Amino acid sequence: MAAQLRVGILGATGTVGQRLVAMLEGHPQFVVTAVAASDRSQGKTFGEACVWRLPGDMPVTLRTLPVLPPQPPLDCDIVLSSLPADMAGPVEAQFAAAGYPVISNSSSHRMDDDVPLLIPEVNAGHLAMIAGRPGRGRGFIVTNPNCSTIMIALALAPLQARFGVEAVIVTTMQAISGAGYPGVASLDITDNVVPYIASEEEKIERETLKILGRVEEGGTRVQPAKFPLSAQCHRVPVVDGHMAAIRVQLGRKAEPGELRDAFTSFRGVPQELGLRTAPPCPILVRDEPDRPQPRLDRDAGGGMSVTVGRIARDRVLSHRFVALSHNTIRGAAGAAILNAELLLAEGLLTESVQ
Amino acid sequence: MAAQLRVGILGATGTVGQRLVAMLEGHPQFVVTAVAASDRSQGKTFGEACVWRLPGDMPVTLRTLPVLPPQPPLDCDIVLSSLPADMAGPVEAQFAAAGYPVISNSSSHRMDDDVPLLIPEVNAGHLAMIAGRPGRGRGFIVTNPNCSTIMIALALAPLQARFGVEAVIVTTMQAISGAGYPGVASLDITDNVVPYIASEEEKIERETLKILGRVEEGGTRVQPAKFPLSAQCHRVPVVDGHMAAIRVQLGRKAEPGELRDAFTSFRGVPQELGLRTAPPCPILVRDEPDRPQPRLDRDAGGGMSVTVGRIARDRVLSHRFVALSHNTIRGAAGAAILNAELLLAEGLLTESVQ
Amino acid sequence: MAAQLRVGILGATGTVGQRLVAMLEGHPQFVVTAVAASDRSQGKTFGEACVWRLPGDMPVTLRTLPVLPPQPPLDCDIVLSSLPADMAGPVEAQFAAAGYPVISNSSSHRMDDDVPLLIPEVNAGHLAMIAGRPGRGRGFIVTNPNCSTIMIALALAPLQARFGVEAVIVTTMQAISGAGYPGVASLDITDNVVPYIASEEEKIERETLKILGRVEEGGTRVQPAKFPLSAQCHRVPVVDGHMAAIRVQLGRKAEPGELRDAFTSFRGVPQELGLRTAPPCPILVRDEPDRPQPRLDRDAGGGMSVTVGRIARDRVLSHRFVALSHNTIRGAAGAAILNAELLLAEGLLTESVQ
Amino acid sequence: MAAQLRVGILGATGTVGQRLVAMLEGHPQFVVTAVAASDRSQGKTFGEACVWRLPGDMPVTLRTLPVLPPQPPLDCDIVLSSLPADMAGPVEAQFAAAGYPVISNSSSHRMDDDVPLLIPEVNAGHLAMIAGRPGRGRGFIVTNPNCSTIMIALALAPLQARFGVEAVIVTTMQAISGAGYPGVASLDITDNVVPYIASEEEKIERETLKILGRVEEGGTRVQPAKFPLSAQCHRVPVVDGHMAAIRVQLGRKAEPGELRDAFTSFRGVPQELGLRTAPPCPILVRDEPDRPQPRLDRDAGGGMSVTVGRIARDRVLSHRFVALSHNTIRGAAGAAILNAELLLAEGLLTESVQ
Repeated sequence: MAAQLRVGILGATGTVGQRLVAMLEGHPQFVVTAVAASDRSQGKTFGEACVWRLPGDMPVTLRTLPVLPPQPPLDCDIVLSSLPADMAGPVEAQFAAAGYPVISNSSSHRMDDDVPLLIPEVNAGHLAMIAGRPGRGRGFIVTNPNCSTIMIALALAPLQARFGVEAVIVTTMQAISGAGYPGVASLDITDNVVPYIASEEEKIERETLKILGRVEEGGTRVQPAKFPLSAQCHRVPVVDGHMAAIRVQLGRKAEPGELRDAFTSFRGVPQELGLRTAPPCPILVRDEPDRPQPRLDRDAGGGMSVTVGRIARDRVLSHRFVALSHNTIRGAAGAAILNAELLLAEGLLTESVQ
Repeated sequence: MAAQLRVGILGATGTVGQRLVAMLEGHPQFVVTAVAASDRSQGKTFGEACVWRLPGDMPVTLRTLPVLPPQPPLDCDIVLSSLPADMAGPVEAQFAAAGYPVISNSSSHRMDDDVPLLIPEVNAGHLAMIAGRPGRGRGFIVTNPNCSTIMIALALAPLQARFGVEAVIVTTMQAISGAGYPGVASLDITDNVVPYIASEEEKIERETLKILGRVEEGGTRVQPAKFPLSAQCHRVPVVDGHMAAIRVQLGRKAEPGELRDAFTSFRGVPQELGLRTAPPCPILVRDEPDRPQPRLDRDAGGGMSVTVGRIARDRVLSHRFVALSHNTIRGAAGAAILNAELLLAEGLLTESVQ
Repeated sequence: MAAQLRVGILGATGTVGQRLVAMLEGHPQFVVTAVAASDRSQGKTFGEACVWRLPGDMPVTLRTLPVLPPQPPLDCDIVLSSLPADMAGPVEAQFAAAGYPVISNSSSHRMDDDVPLLIPEVNAGHLAMIAGRPGRGRGFIVTNPNCSTIMIALALAPLQARFGVEAVIVTTMQAISGAGYPGVASLDITDNVVPYIASEEEKIERETLKILGRVEEGGTRVQPAKFPLSAQCHRVPVVDGHMAAIRVQLGRKAEPGELRDAFTSFRGVPQELGLRTAPPCPILVRDEPDRPQPRLDRDAGGGMSVTVGRIARDRVLSHRFVALSHNTIRGAAGAAILNAELLLAEGLLTESVQ
Repeated sequence: MAAQLRVGILGATGTVGQRLVAMLEGHPQFVVTAVAASDRSQGKTFGEACVWRLPGDMPVTLRTLPVLPPQPPLDCDIVLSSLPADMAGPVEAQFAAAGYPVISNSSSHRMDDDVPLLIPEVNAGHLAMIAGRPGRGRGFIVTNPNCSTIMIALALAPLQARFGVEAVIVTTMQAISGAGYPGVASLDITDNVVPYIASEEEKIERETLKILGRVEEGGTRVQPAKFPLSAQCHRVPVVDGHMAAIRVQLGRKAEPGELRDAFTSFRGVPQELGLRTAPPCPILVRDEPDRPQPRLDRDAGGGMSVTVGRIARDRVLSHRFVALSHNTIRGAAGAAILNAELLLAEGLLTESVQ
């Protein structure tokens, strides 16, 4: 299939929307043909409506696209959504009902029974819920996890597979870009740490268990993993890159070196299939005592690798380590694009016949 | 005793030394009469040797004091030490042997069997190790804990007393001033988090247990508390104020409100005695969902109160909360001065008879 | 007059409003009896409506005051206004017309012909415009300058008096608190400088000349100073404290030491009258090569002193130096309170007879 | 000439040295064959000696190179030097005397009469001082300017050519990476600005005039430009990217649009020759009111373009604008490599015949 699928982006002017646009520029399989956003932007071109906040310039080809309201029909085969949570719920459902595959970064449908919460390296099998849905139409919703969850679930996946996981305690230090724009006021975060991110702890605690769960017999919903998981979340004055200090109780004894090996040898379906946005190694391990660090490690693997360090025994649970990944690439825009690439490879995306 | 005790400060030109000098200015019980520092500063006056890094100006009365080598004799009744760890060990022992009470912020002697590791609100009783020492001379060493430990132990003390503590997991986010000057390179911490502070995790894990332990029968050493404690430490781009995300397994069931009550009602010997540097409330609780924060709460109680917030049940251990305190006041200079005030009140400090 | 004047604060929930409230706590001459704010806050108590963003706690006595709409009548003798510029214009005029002295930090009326733009140390004589106004009622408006202007004009005043000023070039590096709350998005300013602050350059260029101008014959308006002044403004990641790099062409030759002397010997009416909020020295000079610095010098003189350093000859204009002051104290709330104190001392404020 | 020239790097473990190594990886014309550093690193491999502080990993091929003392002979055809200023003077002279072309980022020899201070787009003609030197051997020294000077001189070059320049006033806001590692202490720069960088103002004031000067008759030294230039320098909490607020008095009247055109149309010898490290446009202009900004614009043109914005008339001199460039790429490592590329293209570098 040489032709590119046409992509519509919902929430294109936002922080994640801009990352989607930037990452799709020059993509051989997808081309952005429609941009939609709520409110004030409509009636303008993308160039007029969007204050570009990434280094460099907005892709030239998109400048003249009109910003449309986020409702079907849109001139595209699939939609990628980074709408704010308060809008995403009904809008994404509307697009799915209208026959569009919806690949969403929003939280609204993540916990829906019939919606895969997908990290391609971890639970590609959850797509069975869509592929096997009797009488399904062309439209559906697939979501990627919360920007912290995705890193935590990715890091836990090889441990769960090799050792079993019995309990997890996570303490995050999250970047300001995770709150979008304008997001966190500089007066709140300069020379400061804020020990609170609305709904974040709850998202991490429930999304991680769904991702690491198993599709039930019959393939209609996910049975979540059962271990207890505790998350405390903090905002720190870092531009990009979420960090998590993680303690884990493994199901069996293990030398720290065995965890290291489980991390570095971990590969998933995207690596097997050679998906374009997939990093060669989903998890990198750094052995220096003071790594990972957001500024030095967030761009590893093009922003798609999770970097792990400080693997050691723990005095309360069995082990501990620190994980880091780029929250707007692996944690958002890159996650959605990798999901799209997997869906395409699995034959779940086709050109629309409008 | 109306006269002031004369204080010599070891390491007076450093970050903590400057705080000591600033906090002792105008103190009714103590007056700085000697300043000592290692190396290059000697032979200069304090005004010449010390690049003042606190807001405002160096106390005028100290400018003309000569900077002396850190060795006895010094023209003072007691010494307060904030020497670097590599020097503090032998130097402090030398002063104690020469008959000086040594009140130290350095880590060298904290775990020594005959040295109290003192937080006056928590374990004033550990001074029995000195008071009851048979045939003791005038000299001894008393230490305060590491800047993170002091906040953690203070927050755990009322929980241990009321509920019992069975396990603790701490994740810290620590300010740059904790590393002294020049300390952390700006290239390492701007737009960044460093998940490593040399020896910090070990210090927290062992010092906390000593502080919360009990003096053994006969009063010669401390039997440390026995619960497992895990610490992961991170440096964040904050000037002052260490934060700790804490999970705790209590010895019995408790509503979060009971923890809140245990924190707010906590008082210790310094409050009973009305020690000058003691805050009215050693632990303050903030009920806003996004507090404590370093910039807003570090100066609570003159920098001597620990602020606690986000008290809740935890899914792995039984409860969790966030604690914060000023690392160079409660966590260092203020801790040493409060120790001195307690020792004075307990009759353990007297004028020297040189 | 032993009784306190009753003060109403317009814009009380904002960044500057909170500073006003904090600085008036315990003031012997003024007591806050009414708080007003736009929009959502009305109908709540001040404790409910105001998210307190200064270190420490909101003054207890104000917590139960109702937040009122910003319109007369208010239960007070005078009003202090820190309303946003888009509201301040008509609202302040309305209060003045209703007989209230209005002491405003807003920009709306600063350039009005009959409104003094007041820095008590610099141009107390401009109050003649009010005092001498024929048939004036009780109400009037007095304003303080923009937060950068106030520091620049204060620093230029003694130079103008002693040497004459022929040209000024100012480059500012301004703190985030100058933009209020939420103000500057953290994504815009972390690891960054923004070379633009809306309308700031224009304000500095015109307000400074009015302040340094003279009241015309007859006392009805100010003839602005005539030298050319150029301002370039930048936002930097600093919480509080505006800095300005200043070049000046003086009217006659002068050794740098003469400028230093002009700065340090400068005193004004507030110092003569011993006004409570007036610092002993309006301008402090630091001789260290790397001062002033925002974090170390912003609180000098209780935040009311301007600190000057790096005085030297310049290769293009005749001299240069760096100035710094606290933008929300001397640059806003403290400026308004000092204005109120001067007005009271000059007999221009009286109790209302409602 | 298909073969690569072999490069030795002096000061290879430092901040600029690491940038040199990173930028030379995969370079078709140069290959690093020797690394030298002062002191403690010698006797180790580069992988052991160098704590890599750039994002990503050290080039694999260099890890096993031994770190040598910075003295000839080295196994290379040319040397690139980023030695500290206190060592660079004699060491670089020693290498030049031994027949090595020395391309230096250090300040030691910049103002030497027989050393070109080179920005290839601006004063490639200054190489005549080397090319035409009678009886010259193979060795010589070529330097690039100070990291701020390079941006200022680049921005002034097209203005000088088109309008003439009569006076310049520069105020810089410089990134922390400009001070190397460990460089600026985080306690000095967090929530702060420091209005002092040792020797920086003097370097800008004299280097700019040499760069914009002309080679004298006979080609042996440069006659510096004659306009007065004033620089005030500040350190700001930004990782990379120096900014300068610039006022300029042009030699004739000009609309701001004419300056814009002079900037955007500016090209130099590197663009004509298509040198590998040369950006397509040496100067980019941004028309948004709030650009350039360090975080958004420092990587423009691969870090080799200067971005200019806010072009306007000025009230004291004739015009003003803001310039920004990447201080360790265009301002240091990239500058040296572009110099090497120009020297190679001009036939001034050849393989050594050792």
